[in-house]
Amino acid sequence: MQVFGINVLKELDIKRIKKVYTSRKEVIEYCQNNKITYEYMDNNHLNKFTKGNHQGVIIDIYDYEYYSLDEATSNFILCLDHLEDPHNFGAIIRSAVGAGIDSIIIPKDRSVKVTDTVVKTSAGMINHVKIIMVSNIASALKTLQKKGYFVYAADMHGEDYQKIDYAPKKVLVIGNEGEGISRLVKEVSDVLVRIPIDSKCESLNASVAAGILIYEMRGN
Amino acid sequence: MQVFGINVLKELDIKRIKKVYTSRKEVIEYCQNNKITYEYMDNNHLNKFTKGNHQGVIIDIYDYEYYSLDEATSNFILCLDHLEDPHNFGAIIRSAVGAGIDSIIIPKDRSVKVTDTVVKTSAGMINHVKIIMVSNIASALKTLQKKGYFVYAADMHGEDYQKIDYAPKKVLVIGNEGEGISRLVKEVSDVLVRIPIDSKCESLNASVAAGILIYEMRGN
Repeated sequence: MQVFGINVLKELDIKRIKKVYTSRKEVIEYCQNNKITYEYMDNNHLNKFTKGNHQGVIIDIYDYEYYSLDEATSNFILCLDHLEDPHNFGAIIRSAVGAGIDSIIIPKDRSVKVTDTVVKTSAGMINHVKIIMVSNIASALKTLQKKGYFVYAADMHGEDYQKIDYAPKKVLVIGNEGEGISRLVKEVSDVLVRIPIDSKCESLNASVAAGILIYEMRGN
Repeated sequence: MQVFGINVLKELDIKRIKKVYTSRKEVIEYCQNNKITYEYMDNNHLNKFTKGNHQGVIIDIYDYEYYSLDEATSNFILCLDHLEDPHNFGAIIRSAVGAGIDSIIIPKDRSVKVTDTVVKTSAGMINHVKIIMVSNIASALKTLQKKGYFVYAADMHGEDYQKIDYAPKKVLVIGNEGEGISRLVKEVSDVLVRIPIDSKCESLNASVAAGILIYEMRGN
């Protein structure tokens, strides 16, 4: 997997870096200081090496190693029920880290994974959060409920999100961009929450809705 | 300008449509019922006509006609201070309409404009909001202040956004993705507002930050 740019490089956990290809002096110095394998490559060759906007730095990284459910530790956990769009996933990771969430659950099948677009859109924040992959979301939520977590799922038929007294240990579930929360997950959830919106507007962008709910819920 | 898909077609103001090219029977019926000029085109030809994901419907629309400042009417107005990313612009339009905002101000130069990506990302909501183009943001804000609007600008050195008693007539200013609010606009603003975030995270995605602030401010 390839990612680009000096800011992304500096945010990356050094263990995740295979090799850096760069035309930039300050990047070479950074690699030397941090014992990162690198190779000098001029911009012409970098251009041939990728179609991405490399800004003089191409970073070859190891594939993401997902975490397991028992590694979720924060009192506020996020769960993405078959999200599809990597830009949404990246933006949600960024919002989650900003709110102090350290664990995000995704399902194994029919879901966006940690790709280079996700790493880039997360603005490097992917390294401050555990992405937990589970084979079944509904049973993962049941496991968390047994540990005392309350499960809130975003759904347009839920209660007004600003009128809920949120539990201190909680999971927020965000559904698929088109389909929303799946039936089984809805049945497992303790409370459905809704952002009231004008009737002209069918729904909000998934990463925006996630951001609004995360920042309302985190305080409690 | 070209946009795609039956959902976008149905959301479009019919006056904005030049012509529809489609391979789909239900779209032809929709065009006939609404007196929209159309042409049957099979999917092979549609594929040659665009690189976009047309879903059997290509809509050729007139360029966007911007509004002027004196057409801003809602008590809550949004102002985008040199935003760059069309996906952010589209998502922000969607959030704004969802919150009942009917006017969004953008500057003439060095700003994202209403492009086909914006129309698509707004999920058709562009038709429910006036995009107002001004030559100078700071002086537009001063004009609104004279009309009784309070100007709040998103800035990481501002006051906690949840601890502010917002005025009923207000403008929210969202800055550029990298640079934030420009100096002159900051000077004109009445209050700077900040979303407190974890120190690991430098900032939130611009459309997410806008969504969080819009939905906090709209109630007051």
